[in-house]
Amino acid sequence: MADHLDDFNALLTASQRAARALGVAEAEQRHAAIEGIAIAIEDAADAILAANADDLERGREAGLASGLLDRLLLDGSRIAGLASAARALAQLPDPVGEVLRQRTLPNGLDLTEVRVPFGVIGVIYEARPNVTVDLACIALGSGNAVVLRGGSAAERTNAVLVDAMQGAIERAGLPRESVQTIDRFGRDGAGRLMRARGLVDLLVPRGSAELIERVVTESTVPVIETGAGVVHAFIDRAASLPMALDIVLNAKTQRTSVCNALETVLVHRDIAEAAVPALALALQQAGVTIHADAALPGVDGAAPLGDGGWSTEHLSMDVAIGVVDDLDAAIEHVNRFGTHHTDTIVTDDADAASRFLAEVDSAVVMHNASTRFTDGGEFGFGAEVGISTQKAHARGPMGLPELTSTKWIVRGTGQVRP
Amino acid sequence: MADHLDDFNALLTASQRAARALGVAEAEQRHAAIEGIAIAIEDAADAILAANADDLERGREAGLASGLLDRLLLDGSRIAGLASAARALAQLPDPVGEVLRQRTLPNGLDLTEVRVPFGVIGVIYEARPNVTVDLACIALGSGNAVVLRGGSAAERTNAVLVDAMQGAIERAGLPRESVQTIDRFGRDGAGRLMRARGLVDLLVPRGSAELIERVVTESTVPVIETGAGVVHAFIDRAASLPMALDIVLNAKTQRTSVCNALETVLVHRDIAEAAVPALALALQQAGVTIHADAALPGVDGAAPLGDGGWSTEHLSMDVAIGVVDDLDAAIEHVNRFGTHHTDTIVTDDADAASRFLAEVDSAVVMHNASTRFTDGGEFGFGAEVGISTQKAHARGPMGLPELTSTKWIVRGTGQVRP
Repeated sequence: MADHLDDFNALLTASQRAARALGVAEAEQRHAAIEGIAIAIEDAADAILAANADDLERGREAGLASGLLDRLLLDGSRIAGLASAARALAQLPDPVGEVLRQRTLPNGLDLTEVRVPFGVIGVIYEARPNVTVDLACIALGSGNAVVLRGGSAAERTNAVLVDAMQGAIERAGLPRESVQTIDRFGRDGAGRLMRARGLVDLLVPRGSAELIERVVTESTVPVIETGAGVVHAFIDRAASLPMALDIVLNAKTQRTSVCNALETVLVHRDIAEAAVPALALALQQAGVTIHADAALPGVDGAAPLGDGGWSTEHLSMDVAIGVVDDLDAAIEHVNRFGTHHTDTIVTDDADAASRFLAEVDSAVVMHNASTRFTDGGEFGFGAEVGISTQKAHARGPMGLPELTSTKWIVRGTGQVRP
Repeated sequence: MADHLDDFNALLTASQRAARALGVAEAEQRHAAIEGIAIAIEDAADAILAANADDLERGREAGLASGLLDRLLLDGSRIAGLASAARALAQLPDPVGEVLRQRTLPNGLDLTEVRVPFGVIGVIYEARPNVTVDLACIALGSGNAVVLRGGSAAERTNAVLVDAMQGAIERAGLPRESVQTIDRFGRDGAGRLMRARGLVDLLVPRGSAELIERVVTESTVPVIETGAGVVHAFIDRAASLPMALDIVLNAKTQRTSVCNALETVLVHRDIAEAAVPALALALQQAGVTIHADAALPGVDGAAPLGDGGWSTEHLSMDVAIGVVDDLDAAIEHVNRFGTHHTDTIVTDDADAASRFLAEVDSAVVMHNASTRFTDGGEFGFGAEVGISTQKAHARGPMGLPELTSTKWIVRGTGQVRP
């Protein structure tokens, strides 16, 4: 047991050493490592597919749901997708060294604030092999070492992927420990990562609300909370009804299992008699089940709210509809029951829009747009580690700059403080 | 007990309401509240002095050290100082609403990232009444509500100060609950604040290493770690000796009880025979006790290292001196034993300076300057909440912008995701 802990700390110490090398490596070298990863994944396709077949068989034996098995599955075309995602990540601009503030003090001291890598980033995530490759490339692109704890259902696939990526990193002249997995430490690994203050600089949990809650509660390492999305659309009395229908349908049905999918529609009472029946019909025609806590105009037999009441995150073809008295009530509802992820107002009233954008306390607030746009790719970030729903450090989609810290560099000529 | 907890949650809920009002208040109104605080403190001088006399008497009975009693003490001139500090804080530029990034997507969506207040900030700090006023004004200046847990030795003084400030805030038309103290909840208050996730958006512990350790371990609210400073000066073989003496003496002796004061001097072996005796003599002449773990050239009877070895933070007229083989060994030593606060290199070798600045992993890295410059006031921030020694969110001196979060505002014309 003591040996096991020593092994774990030795692994993290190797990550720290790798992080120091990455911190002084040029962007070209880190990008070359990412491009090498693309080639290595293509070259290792047979071994990756064999390991993935093992994982899938174990998953089927364990009765994994078909959606989870699909996320776990790799085939020839998905492996090509992993390689091309890596090549795309190698093209992203390098955030390291960017100057954020510069000033010269009256005494001649020159102060420069620059972006620097965090160092070692830990990520605890789901059984999705594509995320393994994304995270490794994003870490290299931002100059960080990364310690991965993927879902155990993907353990064999991840082991082969990490091995292939480590080879590529080493061939680019960087330490193979730049990317490491702690899957071999089993269930203990995640807990140890959370308590590795001083060895791990940032921890990003992705996945279920339970996992995120556990990490926030137990971790002594700084954490970025991601994910849960109880996302709202408020249909104001000055909304264009066709636009409201477009946005609600898109936000709810374009993809349901994602955090930026719509969960609750709030309708201004002044237009509820006309708007609710139209919204409900369009949603029902699209196969969506309506939930409510009171009778809705023109809706027969709405289902009750989910177990979480107005805070239920369905992630399925279900939506809650509520009627609110006015803009204030809508803002109050969103701030109270939402998860501060993404919320949109549909209205032609510029003042109502301004108040909603200012007073709704969410990572992303929208006017006349579908909530599905909250995404690193859509925002033009090229990649995302996750969507932060907390306020410290980063808020909303997290791309490469969000994986950097800063450092003040002070250059003097012998100045002392009077 | 349940009632007591209800009271506590009611207090934080009132802070949340106040934060929402502050979040939409104009900077002029928040600045007027700060200026009102200056006047209110002057007007309440007699009551403040009486309460402070009570606190001082309790402190003397409890055997408080004279340094702590001095930090607790208010007199007429210090009260004038509080008021003038508040007036200076009212002049600081408003960070709220600052646009950080803006882009228009090909589909016409307009994305703007703006600074927004955090909401409710909790601070746990020492028995220093001047900090109570600073924190209230800094919070108002950044649009945040603040919940204060000061050292119990200052409880009566803080109660009168907070009462006076609340009156001024109310007269400016803002909620008095913008600034609240939880001192009346006694020792439980700090623990509850740490567990108030969802009610408190950010927690800043200031004070002893034990307090900070406890907050980092127990808190489920995002924390900014501040403070501890095991600060180094590396005297390179290409250092100007007069400059090295100036910087070391200033960094060690100009003020010893502060986190940016020097704790360890590392000397390059190539110049140790000449530099160590000169440094030691100058320090000893200034009244500084030399500590070492091995014989030093020209130093008789150095004291042993402190209980923390090379990681000891003396905060007194004590300094550790060590000889290192080269620049690599110096960087390795600083990263291993330091606290990532502030470290300086003295050298005329530009390459050595570049490597030190790049590879030392600290909030502030300096070349040919005294570490005492790491300070919000010296950096031109006008005020500081503390000095962050962590890498997430803010690093180094924290002024008003560091007390803000961000928000993405997306403006559309009905865009949906294809």
